[in-house]
Amino acid sequence: MQQVIDFILELEKLKAVTRKTRPLGLERYENSAEHSWQIALLAASLLPFAAAPVDIDRVVGMLLVHDIGEIDTGDTIVYADEGLAERKAAERVAVMRIFGMLPDAQGAGFLALWQEFEDGASAEAQFAHAVDRAMPALLNLANGGQSWRENGITHARVVARIGPPIKAGCPALWSYMEERLNEAQRTGWFAA
Amino acid sequence: MQQVIDFILELEKLKAVTRKTRPLGLERYENSAEHSWQIALLAASLLPFAAAPVDIDRVVGMLLVHDIGEIDTGDTIVYADEGLAERKAAERVAVMRIFGMLPDAQGAGFLALWQEFEDGASAEAQFAHAVDRAMPALLNLANGGQSWRENGITHARVVARIGPPIKAGCPALWSYMEERLNEAQRTGWFAA
Repeated sequence: MQQVIDFILELEKLKAVTRKTRPLGLERYENSAEHSWQIALLAASLLPFAAAPVDIDRVVGMLLVHDIGEIDTGDTIVYADEGLAERKAAERVAVMRIFGMLPDAQGAGFLALWQEFEDGASAEAQFAHAVDRAMPALLNLANGGQSWRENGITHARVVARIGPPIKAGCPALWSYMEERLNEAQRTGWFAA
Repeated sequence: MQQVIDFILELEKLKAVTRKTRPLGLERYENSAEHSWQIALLAASLLPFAAAPVDIDRVVGMLLVHDIGEIDTGDTIVYADEGLAERKAAERVAVMRIFGMLPDAQGAGFLALWQEFEDGASAEAQFAHAVDRAMPALLNLANGGQSWRENGITHARVVARIGPPIKAGCPALWSYMEERLNEAQRTGWFAA
């Protein structure tokens, strides 16, 4: 029991990992814990639009654990290209440490979900990636492009980075977003 | 698709619903979105200790949606006794509104999970309640009784309110906590 308690208190730290997006109507930045909650519910809501039939429970599980490595590494905006391999390696060390705090069966289950998400190969992982990539852009579309403007992100960069995974995992969502991203570009919500 | 987008942006508001507990190491109060994420993972971690065999996916689903009514009603500390029936009725109106934003199949699925948690009758709901009730007390045990002290909560009140549901859904967790709550009482972390 003490192992589980130590683990859940370690997870407290994800509430302190801030992202680049601000929750609608709030001044503070979003944290990775509340983000993980929201995308789990977004996945469940988008299930009929998944590119292929998926086990939604595994998708939800992946989304709940996918950012836990950030407890040691911090969040990096999706548009950062440098040092990706090093970041991924550091996140893997982190989740080995954190899931290793649990009894074997529980820790191995979480690690398998995390690894499936990282591998990105299964239909479940592809759908999970689509949902994870879509959420910050959906927030930006609702808040005047806040994190794009604050971080100098261009329309072309967004489309190139999030378009392929969203289209692969949830094509109807990408059709919806593509049109709105083009509108946002015309409105001037992106860096030039 | 627009219904799903409207729904997920409505869920943004749960990130602004603050609870009485502060995340470990942070000055701000916890919000109900990050709390929901954490207890979903606590449930999965505690699965071998559930009082009865449970479908963990339904438990996780319940925990992810159980606080969504607070978008309209706000959070109330578990030790508030007054107006419970009115609060519950208002939360039901809220979730009918919010889940009603979704297409029927998705909305009905979330509402069924929310209702199962509220009814508290199934083994899954009882385990979910145990986990939900335990988490703020586990935080208090790790932070010197912060929300107990700030809100004038006595040891007797905590034990009476959270003991029965935790014991019913996860008896080993209650055995662990009971001893530590008694220690905390001797240390002076509760209101007199």
